[in-house]
Formats: sequence, structure tokens, C-alpha cells
Amino acid sequence: MNDSYLNFVNSPFGARLARSVGLPKPEVLRRYRADQPEFGGLVALGAGREPHLLDALANLVASIGVTSVAHESAGLWVPLANRHGLMTGRFEAADSGSQGKLAALLFDASGIEDSTQLEPLHGFFHDTLRSLGKCGRIIVLGRPPETCTKPRQWTAQRALEGFTRSLGKEARRGITANLVYVEQGAENRAEATLRFFLSPRSAYVSGQVVRIAAGAGADGETAPTFDWRQPLAGRRAVVTGAARGIGASIASVLAAEGAHVIGIDIPTARDALDATMRHLNCTALAFDIAAPEAPAQIAAALDEQGVDIVVHNAGITKDKTIAKMTEAAWQSVIDINLSAQERIDDALLGAGILRDGGRIIGVSSISGIAGNLGQTNYAASKAGVIGRVQSMAPHLRARGITINAVAPGFIETQMTAKIPLTIREAGRRMNSMSQGGQPVDVAQTIAWLAHPGSAGVSGQVVRVCGQSLIGA
Amino acid sequence: MNDSYLNFVNSPFGARLARSVGLPKPEVLRRYRADQPEFGGLVALGAGREPHLLDALANLVASIGVTSVAHESAGLWVPLANRHGLMTGRFEAADSGSQGKLAALLFDASGIEDSTQLEPLHGFFHDTLRSLGKCGRIIVLGRPPETCTKPRQWTAQRALEGFTRSLGKEARRGITANLVYVEQGAENRAEATLRFFLSPRSAYVSGQVVRIAAGAGADGETAPTFDWRQPLAGRRAVVTGAARGIGASIASVLAAEGAHVIGIDIPTARDALDATMRHLNCTALAFDIAAPEAPAQIAAALDEQGVDIVVHNAGITKDKTIAKMTEAAWQSVIDINLSAQERIDDALLGAGILRDGGRIIGVSSISGIAGNLGQTNYAASKAGVIGRVQSMAPHLRARGITINAVAPGFIETQMTAKIPLTIREAGRRMNSMSQGGQPVDVAQTIAWLAHPGSAGVSGQVVRVCGQSLIGA
Repeated sequence: MNDSYLNFVNSPFGARLARSVGLPKPEVLRRYRADQPEFGGLVALGAGREPHLLDALANLVASIGVTSVAHESAGLWVPLANRHGLMTGRFEAADSGSQGKLAALLFDASGIEDSTQLEPLHGFFHDTLRSLGKCGRIIVLGRPPETCTKPRQWTAQRALEGFTRSLGKEARRGITANLVYVEQGAENRAEATLRFFLSPRSAYVSGQVVRIAAGAGADGETAPTFDWRQPLAGRRAVVTGAARGIGASIASVLAAEGAHVIGIDIPTARDALDATMRHLNCTALAFDIAAPEAPAQIAAALDEQGVDIVVHNAGITKDKTIAKMTEAAWQSVIDINLSAQERIDDALLGAGILRDGGRIIGVSSISGIAGNLGQTNYAASKAGVIGRVQSMAPHLRARGITINAVAPGFIETQMTAKIPLTIREAGRRMNSMSQGGQPVDVAQTIAWLAHPGSAGVSGQVVRVCGQSLIGA
Repeated sequence: MNDSYLNFVNSPFGARLARSVGLPKPEVLRRYRADQPEFGGLVALGAGREPHLLDALANLVASIGVTSVAHESAGLWVPLANRHGLMTGRFEAADSGSQGKLAALLFDASGIEDSTQLEPLHGFFHDTLRSLGKCGRIIVLGRPPETCTKPRQWTAQRALEGFTRSLGKEARRGITANLVYVEQGAENRAEATLRFFLSPRSAYVSGQVVRIAAGAGADGETAPTFDWRQPLAGRRAVVTGAARGIGASIASVLAAEGAHVIGIDIPTARDALDATMRHLNCTALAFDIAAPEAPAQIAAALDEQGVDIVVHNAGITKDKTIAKMTEAAWQSVIDINLSAQERIDDALLGAGILRDGGRIIGVSSISGIAGNLGQTNYAASKAGVIGRVQSMAPHLRARGITINAVAPGFIETQMTAKIPLTIREAGRRMNSMSQGGQPVDVAQTIAWLAHPGSAGVSGQVVRVCGQSLIGA
């Protein structure tokens, strides 16, 4: 649970020692705290030709109350910002005093339609990256390639992915770099996602690609109303495996955002579950989600008031190479990590207990993406979670329900604390943050997906891995 | 170009030393040689419920002339094999003498429609994996998840991906594990792909997922005729960057399969290009593909006879972190690696010089998938190559033209020989083969995609990386 190396190299003596012998120095990541401002500092804007998203960005900048400066590539920004009544200036690359002064770099690449038009991307980050401070934020914005009608436009937009991931790997210093593809017509649905990627809430989310889709209905679709400070107020959330670890952190973050959480865990974890839920003024339900009667039990417990958010966090590992893996070890992992989710969702969706506009969030894993030695059962179950998300999203669209998954990388938990030291150290350092994540990093990512403003995000898998090297 | 550690630990003394001190011992991979039989040995078959692909597998087994044994999960195999006139037996797990006796494991998972039906996958590999010999082959077959109508079927089919990738990571000993999704109606289009993944030609291709799509037209579509021993006979192939390295290997493999190759390289490489092409009895064209007149030059050189296969292999790197990268370094990498391909294909496609039924193959990179430090330009260009493949495939379908890309991982070339030793060693070992690949591994993968029997494979990216850990 404790990365003592990270603490050591960030102590005065440790930092001096690390510097003198050339050891890596992971940054202490800035994380969200309710008692500190979530946004602040200078944000630099850049753009390719004919950017389509500057209006949405101006609304964002106004909404979060930061000051912007325009890079020469974003000549349209200054008059636009003025129209929005925003203070703004120009970014001066020559100003060496600007080093570390910027909190975020935003680049609108949505108008780029050909690979020959990609150069402003280089120009902007070439000029500004050194001015980005510790734990700074990079967001590149584009159009979803698969929505582009011309192959050259699709190609150029797809190129952004390789660019942004490379930038994440070279930025270091706790900086995250993510790519947000905003579909035409979805400009007004991007704010919750852009806020998340600008916020310290996304401290351990880097190298990710997220798509914002336009609404299913006509333009008359009404946006949900919510308060940015308590976006989940009045909403009810079920979290499985909530007694401790990542599940308890999810419950805690959702409750802090205003949700009433119904925490579920197995009867043997009842005491821990009760304590966690009592502390949050929430509801504890102790039973085994893998039991045949579980879907009916959950449905019965939720029936009267319904539920808005379902987080399938409960999961187990039973690692063995396949030649040594028993049938029981295979079956229990598949059943708890995958089939139980299917049964529970069917019960909640079939009876209309999960309300329209609801949110389903599964927990996948880097192992589900890349496979892992000794985890044929676990990786199959976690790849299946990705399949659930992809297959169900179109079916749920008409009801305004989204379904997504998070895929944690190396997270500091009781489970990872049991990994032998050298393997644990390798797992911790093999990512752009050179450290493991915290349960709260997974929880905050889930809270973003659960957000009423995230209606445009569905059918997606977002890694919470500090941009781990490992993948497929 | 030379992995001296691999050679050392496979010498009698080196093997003894490695064993005694616990060093990794990468397997010497068995590669295709024209003077050795391509297929041989025992193949074990397993299946989930109601398998749909056993007929296609029986045709394959008959066509390549191997002997099969049926695992208890594939009870349908024995009568089916008998109908096809094949010798077959039953796999006996208890037979300890079977260790290392099997050449390949094939599992037909196409009928699995629910996560609760995945167990035979465990049962089959649990029983058989230890009997698979060095450089053995694992192929799991399923249905493309996105073609499944029911979410639970989609989910179960998607789970196969996590399973197969895990199996690749634990099998070791030069064994490859790949997943082939065969669309309903594409059963007769799978043979070239299954042959490739069973053959020593795919020595360095593992952990990959390939889809075989059904034909665009009605069932009347005529399959191309070809000889499995010289599948490219009578076909003309353009290869850019063909003077040396991977490009020369591509030219050589395509020529060995019967193609007449038109090798292109820059004028400064003219001597090497001429020598390579003379050796292959092929045609050399020395000019710069990035020059504005290049598309017209290629079109003019090919016009009379047309061309069937275009391999965009030419590429450059100009690595620098973005703050230090010049505009020229950005532009030349994007232009040569990406924009030039677009211009050349437009010229060949627009004028009908690339014939119907043709093949376009781009060279992407793991960097284009995962991003890489100091390679914002290169990774953008190689991600763009993925975009080209995905965007153009649907447009080219009506003409029977496929477009795909290979994404090499660590390949032993003059380029990688210049990487500092410790980084080179890490790059070499961080994959399921614990070694770098050879140029011929990339070339053989391209030859499979260029094959007239690969009509069902389009819009895809196949990594040639020994199942590198690195990904996204």
C-alpha cells in the first residue's frame, strides 16, 4: 500500500542522493482535495487549421475560471475569448521566465483534414511543453476518426493517437497527456470529460483516448441538470466489493459527489462493509453476488427507489498457469468477475430498476487487454468485461444509459502489496509516472464516467495505469 | 543484426551455464525453409459447444497433410475426420509419453454464446499445453465479437482475446498463440491465414487477433486460383525502401513466392538496390518517393502491366523530444512515412494501375500503437498508417482490394544495432520469445497479407513483435 521509494526520493536527503547517482525521481502526484481549488493557473491554447472546438473550449475556460494564453497557432482564440468576456493573453515562446508557468496545454486539432496539415501540432508543443509545470495537463482534441468521411481526414485524425501517447511518454514530471475525440454535434457534451482530464482527479490517467458521441435523439434532447460541486446529488449508486480497497474508495468518492451508495460485499466481509458504509452514511448489503439468488436480492433491495449507477467492482484472482489451474479456479473467476455482472445487469435492466439516463461501469484490467502469465481465467473474464461494454452500449443508447469500463494498471492495494518485491517494483515503475496508482485514482475515473455530464461517453474502456508500458 | 546472447545460451556450454545460474533461455525459433517441409507432426483439436468451424479445419488438416488427434472436448472431430478420409486418433491426457509430441493446438470456440460456456477452453489447454513441443502453434478460433447479435455471445467471444494473449505469455519455448475470428460465411476464406499461423513463417507473430470477413458479393464470388507452393506466380509487386534491411527481405520473400518485384529506393542507395534486385531477377527503380513527381513516376513505370501488390515499406526516423525537434525533422518523417503513401496510392488507384483483387500493405510500428519517447513525429506517422488502413478498407472492398498493415516490434536490423546495448537488450527480451525478430519475420507476414487467399483480411494491423509487452 506504500511506495517507500517514492517517499524517500521526495525527501530532502533522498532527492539529493537520487540526483547525485542518477536514480529515477517519480513526482508526488497532485490529487484532488475538497479543501483546495480544483482548477487554477494559466492554460495555453493551440490549434490546427479551422478548429471547430474553440467555442466549447471558451465555455470550459469560463466555467472553470482559469486564465488562458493563445499560442500563435490559435490566432482565433483572442477575439473569441474576448467575445466570451475572458481575460486572455498571448503565449510568448521566447519568454524564458515562462518555464513551468503553465498548468495545461490544450490543442484543438479537430479541423485537420490531411497528414500534411499536422505541423501546428509540432509547433505548439515544441514551443510550450517546457513551460508546462509539474503535474500539468495536456489535452489534444480531435474528431473521432471513424466519423470522418474522407480517408485522408480519418488518417490525420488517427495520427493524433500516436502523437499524444508519445508526448505522454516524454513529458514526465507527473504530467498527463490524453486525446479527446469530440464527434460533430457533441461539442456541448464534452465539458465533464475535459474537466476530468484537466483536474487533479485524473492524476494517474494518461495516454488515453476518449470519444464523445453526439446525442441519439434530435437536438431537442434536454441536457441533465446538475451542480458541478455535487453532480451526483439525489442519485443512487450500487457498488459491489465495497467493503475495502478500491471498492471502498469508489463508494467514498461517489458519496462525496452526493450519491447515496448501496455497498455490497460478501457476508465474511460484513463488518468491514458495515463500517465503511456507516462512515459514509450509506447502505450496506452483505451477500454473495455469485449466488444464484443474488440478482433477485439486489433487485428486491433496490426496487422501490431504483438506482442510477451500477459499479461492478467485485472481482477475484486465482492465478495459476493453465496446466496447473483447476476447473474450480477457472469457473469461480469467470463467474464472479464476468457472469455475475451479466446476471445482475439483466435483472436490473429487465425490471427497469436501473433508471433511464443511468450509468453502468465495469472494472476490467490491463491483464484483460494484454493478457498475463498465470491469468488465463482472470484475463478472459476481464476481456469479457470489455466485450460487455462494447456489446451493450448500442442497446442502452435509446434509454440514455451509458456503459463503460475502467482498466486499472498497477494500483497500490493489499493485493499488490503481496506481490514479491522485485516484480512489484517493476510493475510500479513501468509507466510514465514511475509509480503505482492509488485506489482513489480508479474511483475518480469511475466518478467521471458516472457523472450526469458524461452522457456522450459510452462503450469505452479507460485505463487507469499512469500510461503503463504494458499493452496489446 | 546479431543476438549473441541467443547464440550463446543455445550452445552446449552456454545452455549449461544458463541453467545453473537461472538465466533466461530464449528458444532458437524454427523459421520457414524452402528445403524443409512446412507442416508436420500431430495436431490436437478441441472445441466448445456446437463448433461451426470443424469442417474448415478438416479441409485444412487434409490440405496440409498433418495427422490430428481429438481432445475429449471435440467429440465431433473423429466422425468428421473419418468422413474427410483423414487418419485421426484421440488425445490421451494421461499419456505422459505425449510430452512435447504435439506440433499444434487448435480450439474451435465459435459456438460459445455465453461466458458460462467458456470452460472447455480451460479443459482443452489444461490437458494439452504440456504436450505441445518447442516452437509449437496455438490457434483459437471464434466469431468476430462485433458480428454477434446477442451481447452475451459478443462478450464470450471477446473474452477469448484475454485468454489467448495470456496463453501466449505463459507458453514460452518459442510457441506462438493467436486468435482467428472467422465471420459467418467466411469459413472458406480462412485457409491462407490458418496456414500462416501454423507455419514456421509466423515464428515471431504471437498474441495477435485477426478477423476473416465474408465476401462482399453474393456467394457466386469466384475464389482466386493459385498454387500453394507459388501463390504469387504471375503477380507484380512494388516494394518501397527495397535496397536493404526489411525492404530487401520483403522483396526476396515475395519473389520466392513467385512475384515479380519492382523495388524502389532513393538514388543514393542505387547500387545496393540494383544488386538486390539483380539477385532476385527483378526490377530496380531508383528515385525519392517523397518527391512531388514520384507518384507520376511510379504510375508511368507500372502503367503498361499494372501491379497487384503495393508494399509501403520505406520509412525514416528523426528522433528528438518535441522541445528539441525541428520543423524539418517533423515534416520529413510525416511526409516520407505517411503522406507519400497517400499520394502514391491515390495515383495507382485513381488510374486503375493497382488491379482489382490487389493488395496494399503499410508498415506501421509498435511506436504507432503505444507511442514512444522522442518519437512524436514517427509515432504520429505510424498511427496515421493505421488510420489509412482502417479508413480505406471499406472503400476498396468492392474492387476486391485489401489494405492492411504490419507493426514490427524489435527487429534485428542495422537500425536497431545502433541502439545502446542496455536499451537494446531490454527491447530484445521484453516479449514472449525473449529475443528480437528478423527482417524475414516481417517479410513473411507481409507475404501472407499479399496472398491471393487473404481476401478476407482487410483493414487490420498485425504486430510482428514476438508478443512484445509494450502496447496501448
